[in-house]
Amino acid sequence: MSTSARPRGRRPAGEDTKGAIVTAAREQFGAHGYAGVSMRAIARAAAVDPALVHHYFESKTALFMAAMESPVNPAERVSTALQGPLEDLGARIVRVAVAAWDPPEARDRLRLLLRSAMEHPAGLRAFREFLSTAVLSQIEQRLRQEAGVALDEARRRTGLVGSQLAGLIMARYVIELPAIADADVDELVGQVGPALQRYLTGPL
Amino acid sequence: MSTSARPRGRRPAGEDTKGAIVTAAREQFGAHGYAGVSMRAIARAAAVDPALVHHYFESKTALFMAAMESPVNPAERVSTALQGPLEDLGARIVRVAVAAWDPPEARDRLRLLLRSAMEHPAGLRAFREFLSTAVLSQIEQRLRQEAGVALDEARRRTGLVGSQLAGLIMARYVIELPAIADADVDELVGQVGPALQRYLTGPL
Repeated sequence: MSTSARPRGRRPAGEDTKGAIVTAAREQFGAHGYAGVSMRAIARAAAVDPALVHHYFESKTALFMAAMESPVNPAERVSTALQGPLEDLGARIVRVAVAAWDPPEARDRLRLLLRSAMEHPAGLRAFREFLSTAVLSQIEQRLRQEAGVALDEARRRTGLVGSQLAGLIMARYVIELPAIADADVDELVGQVGPALQRYLTGPL
Repeated sequence: MSTSARPRGRRPAGEDTKGAIVTAAREQFGAHGYAGVSMRAIARAAAVDPALVHHYFESKTALFMAAMESPVNPAERVSTALQGPLEDLGARIVRVAVAAWDPPEARDRLRLLLRSAMEHPAGLRAFREFLSTAVLSQIEQRLRQEAGVALDEARRRTGLVGSQLAGLIMARYVIELPAIADADVDELVGQVGPALQRYLTGPL
């Protein structure tokens, strides 16, 4: 059955179904932000069974990343970095971020992603919500549970972490400031890690 | 004399002369980067007397900022921040940066600037050179002269400062992460200042 001949109702699983889900996701996230869209709503917009969306994408973050055409899912990376003690989380975050974006194809894609976000305010809004509710929120939760930090303080601390991380990524992959772009991973971990650690658990 | 009737040779001072200088500057910086262009070369490209370029623009950084349509000249702001002791330069840099970009018209313009830089690799290259040779170089020089830091180390330290500063600006004005966008200036100075100070003069 061709797409144009498809009757109203649910789309069968098939070649272009995954693409249709991604297209619907892009439209939904663009219109309603990240937080305002569920996988069920995307299934509805793509006219497919919700189970099929879960079959292709294991999480909403994975679907959002597919819609953004990002080769890296920061939500998954942060969850990897969170494995281990809180007292050296700063160093692990730097290591995981640099490992994720250092491959040439990842950094090329990063520049396109930023460009697209700059051109579309709705994309920037969805990205901000994704960052707050799916990435930084994981660190926030850890700080609240393990260090007993109040919500506002946890948000500020993780926001500061996000700012240094965004800047490291900009300096290394986008602006390509030589002193940062050419730096060895271990050096960056040793130099930026303690700054993140102070934001996480140090006196502010 | 209309512009189209202007004979080969020097353009007289007048209404659209300043605009012609800015246009020529934009073309020259785009073609040759920031470091590779002199005010004299821009005068030649605009067909005006070099003295006229200096009459309208007191420095190459000011002319570059006019070409970028930036309401803020980071080179001048850093030079302001450098006035005072090295031991609290980190805090002064945060305060000066936030004061520069907080006005609504400045942040609106910032988003356009970043968008334009993302779209034009030549613009990004010129911006990187401007940042290295006209902004961060000032801090580098101070570290070398006053703290006796070697060139490579001074570059890494100022590069790290640049990364946290770029990230703060991205988080507050572009991504608009609530915990950073809504933060009070004094709080940010107290929270980010020490991170910059460690990059400047702390053990790395």
